[in-house]
Amino acid sequence: MTIIETIDAFHRGAFHLVQPKGRGHRAGMDAMMLASLVDAEGPVRVADLGAGAGAAGLAVAARVPQAMVTLYERAEEMAEYARKSLNLTENAHLKGRVNVIVADVTLKGDARRAAGLDDDAFDHVIMNPPFNDHQDRRTPDALKAEAHAMTQGLFEDWVRTAGAILKPGGQLSLIARPQSMAEIIAACGRRFGGLELTPIYPRAGESAVRLLATAIKGSRARLNLRPGLVMHDGEAHAFTPFVDDLNNGRAVLKRTGR
Amino acid sequence: MTIIETIDAFHRGAFHLVQPKGRGHRAGMDAMMLASLVDAEGPVRVADLGAGAGAAGLAVAARVPQAMVTLYERAEEMAEYARKSLNLTENAHLKGRVNVIVADVTLKGDARRAAGLDDDAFDHVIMNPPFNDHQDRRTPDALKAEAHAMTQGLFEDWVRTAGAILKPGGQLSLIARPQSMAEIIAACGRRFGGLELTPIYPRAGESAVRLLATAIKGSRARLNLRPGLVMHDGEAHAFTPFVDDLNNGRAVLKRTGR
Repeated sequence: MTIIETIDAFHRGAFHLVQPKGRGHRAGMDAMMLASLVDAEGPVRVADLGAGAGAAGLAVAARVPQAMVTLYERAEEMAEYARKSLNLTENAHLKGRVNVIVADVTLKGDARRAAGLDDDAFDHVIMNPPFNDHQDRRTPDALKAEAHAMTQGLFEDWVRTAGAILKPGGQLSLIARPQSMAEIIAACGRRFGGLELTPIYPRAGESAVRLLATAIKGSRARLNLRPGLVMHDGEAHAFTPFVDDLNNGRAVLKRTGR
Repeated sequence: MTIIETIDAFHRGAFHLVQPKGRGHRAGMDAMMLASLVDAEGPVRVADLGAGAGAAGLAVAARVPQAMVTLYERAEEMAEYARKSLNLTENAHLKGRVNVIVADVTLKGDARRAAGLDDDAFDHVIMNPPFNDHQDRRTPDALKAEAHAMTQGLFEDWVRTAGAILKPGGQLSLIARPQSMAEIIAACGRRFGGLELTPIYPRAGESAVRLLATAIKGSRARLNLRPGLVMHDGEAHAFTPFVDDLNNGRAVLKRTGR
């Protein structure tokens, strides 16, 4: 069987991504919006949990010139695409700052540390946890199914790992469905505070299709439900200007507080 | 000690409310927004749980000409204000359709039914559960403290009662703080579905201060995070037109689906 790869430009050509065509989760808007939550400068350490082909982590590396990014991905096949991306000449400016580790981010304790997920090591953790929804279209392809298979307790497992590998005061960022908000809040529990939730609406008057969330390890600040982002004005296909800037690495979605 | 009462006009004079001045929770915007969630016609039966002086329930009765409204309030003193409101000549059009029952809405089973909270009796249940927050100003007054005292599990208790007294397919409506969203979702559990959440923002760019929620007893529909309502444009003191209409009983906040 021949797997067709594509090379897609993101951030208006600031970096490129090798992805399988028709297999696995294809990176796009979600990964770019997730990356826009990392409001950082200097040599920060960033972990992308369940990185897939690495779109979100590479987007952070492309926008934050000194960021050191580790992509953690369980599926060797997807990790290999991330390595291919790093070997593209177009991505030469990222190569020394991004590494790829094949690891299951749901591991605990010593097994987690042995897999390369070190305690208190990162300034930022980003994640786009897999989800599934019975009301969605079927995903017959196995890799795609894995990328979308949200099982009970998955947020708990992923957020626990984020809590372990972040430095105190470090920031967790994630993108999820609005339907997962209670699970996200529960998973943050006492590990994280200052949870800030930002709905993403396709158009004015429509219900949210995604939820952006950030939280601070060890914070006691209370939850903040922030103004939503609207992707499109009226019937337009183009993104609204601020969303377009977020999608292209020209803006970050700043938190209201630390 | 003399308790000063006020008589306040709501819905631009469509009904009036007797309230204690400086004691207890004073009804206002929250109660009117809650009432705006009841999208009903004809002789529907509506229960207002923890009705206080009855502002929200009276607002529904004022807007829906055939609605039959029962106000449930634990504090006899507050229930007495509701009765005083019903005896105002200005509220003569409401009197035969609104009754007041002194009852603890957290009662269960036979005790709940004995207190006048009948099973499967209502088309709509509305509630503005008390809340407290350590980051808030203190509320030294005892009645006010009771009205704001959100204790662990209170949403669970209130929503359980709503689930019991609603007819199948009946609608629960509530107003709460955004910080309570996880508790609301958990309390709805399997009793309710089709949860629709609408944030209320003071102004564009600010975080939400309230969350409106509706849910349908027995529904299996998934959660919907709806567009937020913005109360004020820019620096204006006046409400934005749609919020002003909701506040004045001239509009309802319709659900996207049943």
